[in-house]
Amino acid sequence: MSLLEDARNGVVTDEMRQVAVDEGVDAEFVRRGVAAGRIVIPVSPYRSVRVVGIGKGLRTKVNASIGTSSDLVDVEMEVEKAKVAQEAGADTLMELSTGGDFYEIRKRVVGVTDLSVGSVPLYQAFIEAIRRYGAAVHMRVDDLFRITEEQAKLGTNFMAIHTGINRITVERLMKQGRFGGLCSRGGAFMTAWMIHNEMENPLYSEFDYLLEILKEHEVTLSMGNGMRAGAVHDATDRAQIQELIINSELSDRAYDYGVQVIVEGPGHVPLDEIKANVILEKRLSGERPFYMLGPLVTDIAPGYDHIVAAIGASISSACGADFICYVTPSEHLALPNPEEVREGVIAARIAAHVGDMVKNGRREDDLLMGRARRDLDWKKQYELAIEPEYAEELRCERTPSNSETCTMCGEYCSLKIVKENFNFKR
Amino acid sequence: MSLLEDARNGVVTDEMRQVAVDEGVDAEFVRRGVAAGRIVIPVSPYRSVRVVGIGKGLRTKVNASIGTSSDLVDVEMEVEKAKVAQEAGADTLMELSTGGDFYEIRKRVVGVTDLSVGSVPLYQAFIEAIRRYGAAVHMRVDDLFRITEEQAKLGTNFMAIHTGINRITVERLMKQGRFGGLCSRGGAFMTAWMIHNEMENPLYSEFDYLLEILKEHEVTLSMGNGMRAGAVHDATDRAQIQELIINSELSDRAYDYGVQVIVEGPGHVPLDEIKANVILEKRLSGERPFYMLGPLVTDIAPGYDHIVAAIGASISSACGADFICYVTPSEHLALPNPEEVREGVIAARIAAHVGDMVKNGRREDDLLMGRARRDLDWKKQYELAIEPEYAEELRCERTPSNSETCTMCGEYCSLKIVKENFNFKR
Repeated sequence: MSLLEDARNGVVTDEMRQVAVDEGVDAEFVRRGVAAGRIVIPVSPYRSVRVVGIGKGLRTKVNASIGTSSDLVDVEMEVEKAKVAQEAGADTLMELSTGGDFYEIRKRVVGVTDLSVGSVPLYQAFIEAIRRYGAAVHMRVDDLFRITEEQAKLGTNFMAIHTGINRITVERLMKQGRFGGLCSRGGAFMTAWMIHNEMENPLYSEFDYLLEILKEHEVTLSMGNGMRAGAVHDATDRAQIQELIINSELSDRAYDYGVQVIVEGPGHVPLDEIKANVILEKRLSGERPFYMLGPLVTDIAPGYDHIVAAIGASISSACGADFICYVTPSEHLALPNPEEVREGVIAARIAAHVGDMVKNGRREDDLLMGRARRDLDWKKQYELAIEPEYAEELRCERTPSNSETCTMCGEYCSLKIVKENFNFKR
Repeated sequence: MSLLEDARNGVVTDEMRQVAVDEGVDAEFVRRGVAAGRIVIPVSPYRSVRVVGIGKGLRTKVNASIGTSSDLVDVEMEVEKAKVAQEAGADTLMELSTGGDFYEIRKRVVGVTDLSVGSVPLYQAFIEAIRRYGAAVHMRVDDLFRITEEQAKLGTNFMAIHTGINRITVERLMKQGRFGGLCSRGGAFMTAWMIHNEMENPLYSEFDYLLEILKEHEVTLSMGNGMRAGAVHDATDRAQIQELIINSELSDRAYDYGVQVIVEGPGHVPLDEIKANVILEKRLSGERPFYMLGPLVTDIAPGYDHIVAAIGASISSACGADFICYVTPSEHLALPNPEEVREGVIAARIAAHVGDMVKNGRREDDLLMGRARRDLDWKKQYELAIEPEYAEELRCERTPSNSETCTMCGEYCSLKIVKENFNFKR
């Protein structure tokens, strides 16, 4: 019995109970969400993880993606990044290496984290095709499914799989064109493969076989967004929405078959189109959990894309996105280092919290912080801070002359003036 | 003739022409905006500056506040911060020192920048009262107006003046209470003074005299938001809105008298209340330029409040805020250093741009960047980046193996795959 089947049969599993405790909701609420396909809990028969629920009524979750590239293969750094991401508070980890020994790297990463881990089997399939057969377009369909199964057996909890790039989607793309090309590696590889081979995307045409593999190894399917915009001027275009329609259709088949399913979304989206993207995903897919990368609300700030994504993700999560992928400061410029991974996770956690304040009314910590500030209770302020040690360090490195205040306002701290002169507490 | 009077008389001044050129709009559009009180151009008869227009139909402007505190009086650092803020692209500078020799520091700062400079005369008045008479509540009204005039003569272009904290406002505050006290130093000082002396705020009761001074020295009046929330749970409360009503009333009198006027707004505001705050200010004040601090959309991220403010400011500027005050990473923890000033300015500039993409449809640079990425044109990407040198540095310090790509994706760059396989340019 898969978790989804258990939920449908009215069985509350340990995982559902754990999610309920973590979220402060009823276990029955979680079961009902899983049974309806509005919540997923990515598990794996091969590895026990700190379970995490993703979906409606739950806290917005943050994913951190790590992995080598062909230019930088440093397994120790990737292991370090996995640790840093977990310490900084990421809810899940995607291991997206495209350089080096895939099996070795994934095993190492999976070994140092107890977070749910995701992957993109397409990457390995296409890159192995380049290594073995000389070009990505020579990728063999059997290899793709074999690699999917192998990755599942390594204890992968969820996989981003580009099922929605079928001939209908590619036709929309080619007829329309793009200002910013494609920014999805899986999308670019698969589209090139389909055009070169004049064949349908096997992940679409052999979707039932894919579901068999995913069900057997109980992998949660995250429907990849290969047509996501890589430039705000391509946002919410026909190719992207066509793929979303196809993915939404397939998500019903996955759900019916007993495979937990998430739908992925863009990408680069201007601020005023974010809400429409969330509404569309929720309506077209029937409220499947929505996994959004950011979105990035402008293209002009490379070096600061963690801030750009935090802006977008605050709004997307406030509007109903359930799962957001972090973006690091080095996005569009370089493979991130551990410090950038940390900054990316923190920025995304801020955004998730800001969204949850709206979506789920989670404002208790803000209330406590407001009062701690008013009362000049610094111990409490540090405790409530998203990064307690960093907050304390920042205050203390510029030594305040008074234990109640900080160097920003010194003795003319407005809160101190209030504390000494008024009494209007709430 | 003041600039506002010129505008009303149909005269297009050099300042209006310059603003029109900078913004890519008609000079007559600027003149009409100034004449209607929807746009201000802070000038000073004592100092020539790089003029900047603030208000409806113009680019959102970014202010950077600097200044000493009683704990940290390092004039050279403040001078450095002024330079850094201008280099990083701030549109205006507020010099808000509360420690050391006020006159000396302001002169030095004004001397190293050609940005419009703002001040808060209340700070100096109250702190001099503490120094001379032993307590802020002993501040003398004559000193307050004298200091206002002295600061004007130093070439101050705009002043934040807390006119709206009158007895009606304070009564609302005391009846209601606050979760987070007051975070405005001017607000806390003035409220304490009013309660202690059982007197009306002189900036309200002697508003006509204040206007005389401001008009004589042609200072733009920025109506201070002393009741802004210092905690998201106090946002949009009765005290804040009461002050906004009073300020809006007074803004009519200032406008009628020929003094350019801006209205200031909060502060700490959750994401879902930002739009209401902008609508309120625009409606109550009759579309005066709205100057918002951020707003900060959560209280739990000290150390990262530049990101928190960027989230809020993106939305506030998209909704119609005209002028945003930056927030540095050390807000709530310490007086910022020059590097934090730089980070604060960049984050605020990103937010202003994201807002302008919505409010003013300014998306040309995003289009060019999208195409430059698609075409793997790195020179162009750097040029279009908000911080060209930083973007180039970040990419180049991790040397890409191929001049077309970066280390993030290396040879499996999606844009490279697209460039080599497809032709769907727009």
